[in-house]
Amino acid sequence: MKRVIYREFGHPAKVLELIEEDSVALEPGQARIEVLRSPINPSDYIQVAGDYGVRPPLPATAGNEGIGRVSEVNGEGIKVGQLVLLPIGDGAWRTEIVGQISHLVPMPEGDLDQLSMLMVNPATAHLLLSEFVHLKEGDWIIQSAANSAVGTYVVQLAKARGINVCCVVRRESAAPALEEIGASAVLVDGPDLAKEVRQKTGAKMKLALDAVAGETFGRLAETLEEGGVLVNYGAMSMQPAQISAGSMIFRDITIKGFWLVHWFSKASKAERMQVYASLTQAVAQGTLFALIDKVFALEDITEAVSYTMAGERTGKVLLAPNGI
Amino acid sequence: MKRVIYREFGHPAKVLELIEEDSVALEPGQARIEVLRSPINPSDYIQVAGDYGVRPPLPATAGNEGIGRVSEVNGEGIKVGQLVLLPIGDGAWRTEIVGQISHLVPMPEGDLDQLSMLMVNPATAHLLLSEFVHLKEGDWIIQSAANSAVGTYVVQLAKARGINVCCVVRRESAAPALEEIGASAVLVDGPDLAKEVRQKTGAKMKLALDAVAGETFGRLAETLEEGGVLVNYGAMSMQPAQISAGSMIFRDITIKGFWLVHWFSKASKAERMQVYASLTQAVAQGTLFALIDKVFALEDITEAVSYTMAGERTGKVLLAPNGI
Repeated sequence: MKRVIYREFGHPAKVLELIEEDSVALEPGQARIEVLRSPINPSDYIQVAGDYGVRPPLPATAGNEGIGRVSEVNGEGIKVGQLVLLPIGDGAWRTEIVGQISHLVPMPEGDLDQLSMLMVNPATAHLLLSEFVHLKEGDWIIQSAANSAVGTYVVQLAKARGINVCCVVRRESAAPALEEIGASAVLVDGPDLAKEVRQKTGAKMKLALDAVAGETFGRLAETLEEGGVLVNYGAMSMQPAQISAGSMIFRDITIKGFWLVHWFSKASKAERMQVYASLTQAVAQGTLFALIDKVFALEDITEAVSYTMAGERTGKVLLAPNGI
Repeated sequence: MKRVIYREFGHPAKVLELIEEDSVALEPGQARIEVLRSPINPSDYIQVAGDYGVRPPLPATAGNEGIGRVSEVNGEGIKVGQLVLLPIGDGAWRTEIVGQISHLVPMPEGDLDQLSMLMVNPATAHLLLSEFVHLKEGDWIIQSAANSAVGTYVVQLAKARGINVCCVVRRESAAPALEEIGASAVLVDGPDLAKEVRQKTGAKMKLALDAVAGETFGRLAETLEEGGVLVNYGAMSMQPAQISAGSMIFRDITIKGFWLVHWFSKASKAERMQVYASLTQAVAQGTLFALIDKVFALEDITEAVSYTMAGERTGKVLLAPNGI
């Protein structure tokens, strides 16, 4: 079997390496899963860089989610051939993984690319829309990094609820794809963002979702209604978030961060199942999807992360450890 | 009578002017108040500059709080000679003001300098300590601009409740005065603030109060416990507030702004009376006080605001419109 590990924290293109080792024998109650697809998420390379909220003990296997097919079973409860989400916590960028049968989450057959991304980004989008502000039909929200995977899911989930999404992107060329999936307005980020949002939407935003930080953070705040909420869940600009004191003081806004790991640690099993049941159905049916830019073999991991981190993509980058 | 007005928004040293005009006759139910003391608060000059949350119609009289003595009455309910808080909304930097008797708030005799500052800063300090986090004896909080008037009141009010205050200042020379009134720790602001706070206090902060913005804002955030709250109520650095996305995302902190005007608009009359009754008593008794740097005559208003805005003061600057 092969897996992608890092022995020290650093730039993923420098520290990630593919190693080959023998498969381990299954213990009773375990299953072996052949890994079919695993996405490269921003949180994956932030983790490898050592800048994540928690640092795994080293050496560690990279990657955090994916989908695979059961190839061997030692016990009852699951059949060879069943599609499952990869068990989390032991790295996903590998050709195979061994998991406890009782912990496996069976998945319906469907688009493997889309199903492999279920765990992190659709759940993040769903929770960004439900954990902070009570949104109702006709309300407006605004988001930066709108053409990211999370941003795309936010538009799809919001549209299904009749919520208007004002999308902020870095370049005009990203607009058509967002309008096609249901964005109510698309604007290119810039110093006059708040004014342009008012002109284009005639609305004040109840919620702002930011994954860019830098000056974009404060610009989104200016579009909020009094008492609105600004949620940050990323820093694609690699800059600290900036906001004027006046935005905070005079307009009574609340600023929060969102981390899926926190939500997992606080949510009950019933809450988690409720969130994932509806998302699984929507992804399997194809009503909730992210654009795919490229799929790489595991052997090309260095090229794959370099390509992903360079930006200017039109969708997600995935790894296919057992063949594209 | 004389009053300090501005006909346009701009730098206070440029746009403020002292005008002289006839006193108006009292209507039934009104009283004339001779203004004795009015402080120069940061919010006063931010308002003159046009950068405040609300802009008054121009020309406007500057100043927002103070204390005076009733000098003439047309009606029942108050006696000539009674000390009262200046009625708000019509400017405080003037030799006299006319108010509705029914709206006047009588004050006990006491230190006029201290009593003139009751309305804004002690209430702000009180509410910063009560509106955001439930604090109990032994808890730690941190604040920037600790030697400001609000900062000084925060230390005094927190100490009375057994709450530890870690004070952050710009220069070492500000430390002794803060230690004397009960600060548990005093540190000079700098890039390693969070580390120094941990070394000096061994504690994580439940609440951070910031009136500086800029990089200080993000440094205070780093000292918070998971789930802690960061409240901004000013921007003495004149810079946007900066914070890393990681601080927001991974540590689950909440960021809020505080504006006394919002609180006034939301609080019930009973809540307002409860807050001010206890503060009035403490200020009149001298257990709650701000250091006074200098008192200026109304004629010297341009010098007074320039002096106040230059910083490097050791306390508040007051105006004495009817003689120092």
